[in-house]
Amino acid sequence: MTLHTTGLPPLNAERLWRRIETLSTFTLPDAPWTRRAFSPEFEQARRWLAEEFSNAGMAVRLDEGGNLVGRLPAAAGAAPRAPIVTGSHCDTVMMGGRFDGIIGVLAGIEVAHTLHENGIALQHPFEVIDFLSEEPSDYGISCIGSRAISGKLGPDMLAATNPQGETLAQGMRRIGARPEALIGPLRGKGSTAAFVELHIEQGPVLERSQLPIGVVTNIVGIRRVAFTVRGQADHAGTTPMDIRQDALAGAACIIGAANRKAWALAGQPHYVVATVGRLSLTPNASNAVPGLVEMTMEVRSDNAGVLASFPEELFAEVRPALAGLRVQADMHEVSRSQPTDCQELVMQGIEQACRQLGYASMRMPSGAGHDAVYMAATGPIGMIFIPCLQGRSHAPEEWIEPAQLLDGTRVLYQTVRVLDEQLAALS
Amino acid sequence: MTLHTTGLPPLNAERLWRRIETLSTFTLPDAPWTRRAFSPEFEQARRWLAEEFSNAGMAVRLDEGGNLVGRLPAAAGAAPRAPIVTGSHCDTVMMGGRFDGIIGVLAGIEVAHTLHENGIALQHPFEVIDFLSEEPSDYGISCIGSRAISGKLGPDMLAATNPQGETLAQGMRRIGARPEALIGPLRGKGSTAAFVELHIEQGPVLERSQLPIGVVTNIVGIRRVAFTVRGQADHAGTTPMDIRQDALAGAACIIGAANRKAWALAGQPHYVVATVGRLSLTPNASNAVPGLVEMTMEVRSDNAGVLASFPEELFAEVRPALAGLRVQADMHEVSRSQPTDCQELVMQGIEQACRQLGYASMRMPSGAGHDAVYMAATGPIGMIFIPCLQGRSHAPEEWIEPAQLLDGTRVLYQTVRVLDEQLAALS
Repeated sequence: MTLHTTGLPPLNAERLWRRIETLSTFTLPDAPWTRRAFSPEFEQARRWLAEEFSNAGMAVRLDEGGNLVGRLPAAAGAAPRAPIVTGSHCDTVMMGGRFDGIIGVLAGIEVAHTLHENGIALQHPFEVIDFLSEEPSDYGISCIGSRAISGKLGPDMLAATNPQGETLAQGMRRIGARPEALIGPLRGKGSTAAFVELHIEQGPVLERSQLPIGVVTNIVGIRRVAFTVRGQADHAGTTPMDIRQDALAGAACIIGAANRKAWALAGQPHYVVATVGRLSLTPNASNAVPGLVEMTMEVRSDNAGVLASFPEELFAEVRPALAGLRVQADMHEVSRSQPTDCQELVMQGIEQACRQLGYASMRMPSGAGHDAVYMAATGPIGMIFIPCLQGRSHAPEEWIEPAQLLDGTRVLYQTVRVLDEQLAALS
Repeated sequence: MTLHTTGLPPLNAERLWRRIETLSTFTLPDAPWTRRAFSPEFEQARRWLAEEFSNAGMAVRLDEGGNLVGRLPAAAGAAPRAPIVTGSHCDTVMMGGRFDGIIGVLAGIEVAHTLHENGIALQHPFEVIDFLSEEPSDYGISCIGSRAISGKLGPDMLAATNPQGETLAQGMRRIGARPEALIGPLRGKGSTAAFVELHIEQGPVLERSQLPIGVVTNIVGIRRVAFTVRGQADHAGTTPMDIRQDALAGAACIIGAANRKAWALAGQPHYVVATVGRLSLTPNASNAVPGLVEMTMEVRSDNAGVLASFPEELFAEVRPALAGLRVQADMHEVSRSQPTDCQELVMQGIEQACRQLGYASMRMPSGAGHDAVYMAATGPIGMIFIPCLQGRSHAPEEWIEPAQLLDGTRVLYQTVRVLDEQLAALS
């Protein structure tokens, strides 16, 4: 059996883009584009998505973890094999975009629809998953569906509450999931032949490189640490400089050092970014010396060693300056995830698909987290990135051209065909 | 006529302290010590204060600007003279202290009470004023009463609204003032023979110097500027360091430079403090590069030249670093007040009183604003500072010992006697 390497996959570009436009209508009207997981808009979108899964020829079900799963069977007579899986998520952050996550689901549907209407049966079952709540949910938990698949949605997370006091378990039951069944992974190791996710880059690298396709090498690990800087809230007029203990001056010292340190380490040779993105100040009055600053710094890297040492080294470096300002500081870890590698099998499959279709590509890390991180527990993973306008994401102005989406969907289709053939030959 | 320079003024220390304790009971019960101007607690306190003014022998009235004014007449047969005036304010910030402002009113009452019960009539009328809302009011305006006295409470200020939508004019009428009468200064130039205000230092200098009395040389001028730092809110994971425009990194650069610059200028030879006390961050999420920082910096100095140049020099100094971070910044002035000098007549009067009573003292600027600033338009001013515990003020733990209050009240009494004699001799 040989792949048809002449011509492009017979995708329906117009149908694909129309689905993007339809899904974008399920939004909070006053805050486009907002489709928070567990919201009425989300449930409406899910009902529509389930119909589209069916229209594409797939059997559709909601799994115990609240993931919407569509499935095409393998060719009649094919050996029993684990499925090749694609997918992403249809939920958004508040005032998010129309593409983050969404294209991974709708491109998956288009691939299935094309296979189905062209009578092409794979040697593997083919699944498309709309994972539940990849974005941080109102319960404070992200990647709810893919965590459930990999057995990493524990009782403590299910007991987390949203601002209305509903637990995550209650919310999941409300949308049709069965959290009481989550006593182990929904899918075990080896249950996925390969997982490949199409996603917008959410950064500016591909656009600046003028490349249509990124082949993700790994998904960065993230360490979040909370800094508390304690000074003394004094009268801003009556407290001389040599007596005051200004917590914000201390915080500024940490912020500046974190920025310089990440800058110095980036590309030497690892991917390193550090961000103080959240800061609160007490008493936060123009005539008061700041007495307390609480802030969160996150470091992301594709290198575990950088992650392991960055916050502690930074803190050691700024200690003398903080002592000079007579402020106390402490640092504690909020969360830590390790970098997740993509597998050569999938990366090379994507690259082979690109060569067959005539697309240039580059390997690159993913600076954002994705459901693929949790799917890695079930089998080999890979991700296909396409550029987005000015790298903007998680914002209403997030944008891709229809032609860019078509590029990515073609590569996804062809990657599925390549992996199907290669994996069938191996098994 | 000679002053009795032997022995201490016949003040009633117990009565003085009891009034402190009584006034402190007029507070929001759940947020001690809170007596916001225009609140029910404030109006209750004012009714009690009016009785105490009367008990001390004073005629009492509420002036058009909402100031509660007590007055002892001059000695029978004395030439017509402008009054010697003391006073301060009984309103507090939220969760403020029991002494800031308050002691200046209650010590004034005690001085009047002592003069009255000992049958001592001065050559000048003697007035004690509880100024309306020295602290920033819910209408956003501070020093409301003393501004009214000096003719600096304009129609724009009277039209300012509190969060409930009430205008300042309406609020003033509600507490018995007559804002419609404020078409010029309530008291003209020369209408005060001398104004002397007793206040806690609200800073740590006297306590560290182990001195009971500060003689204020001037009240610092204040410039407040707002900085807006604009970067771009990008994904914190996917935006490499060399591409991001981090507004908080830019803000940190300004904060650090302001701190170092004020430190370098302080005491060379001027009083200089600079504070970034208020900061807000957008979007303020741990996984987002900060796109916008808005913050307020205030500079206080007893030197007009320092005030005139500090923000602009600072901004010029940080521009290259901000450009390196690829962020835009602008600065605009929010408010500006000039330093207000105290007059030698009053400063020397206080120092003479200290010598007569055996108190050591030091001259010092006031880093905080006071009603005395506005009273300067009506005649010579001076201020007496006493230490407060650890320099803490505008906080529930603000504290002075009864003996420290007695020291300050004795100096106030004696200063009034000294000024009365000296000024009568001049006129």
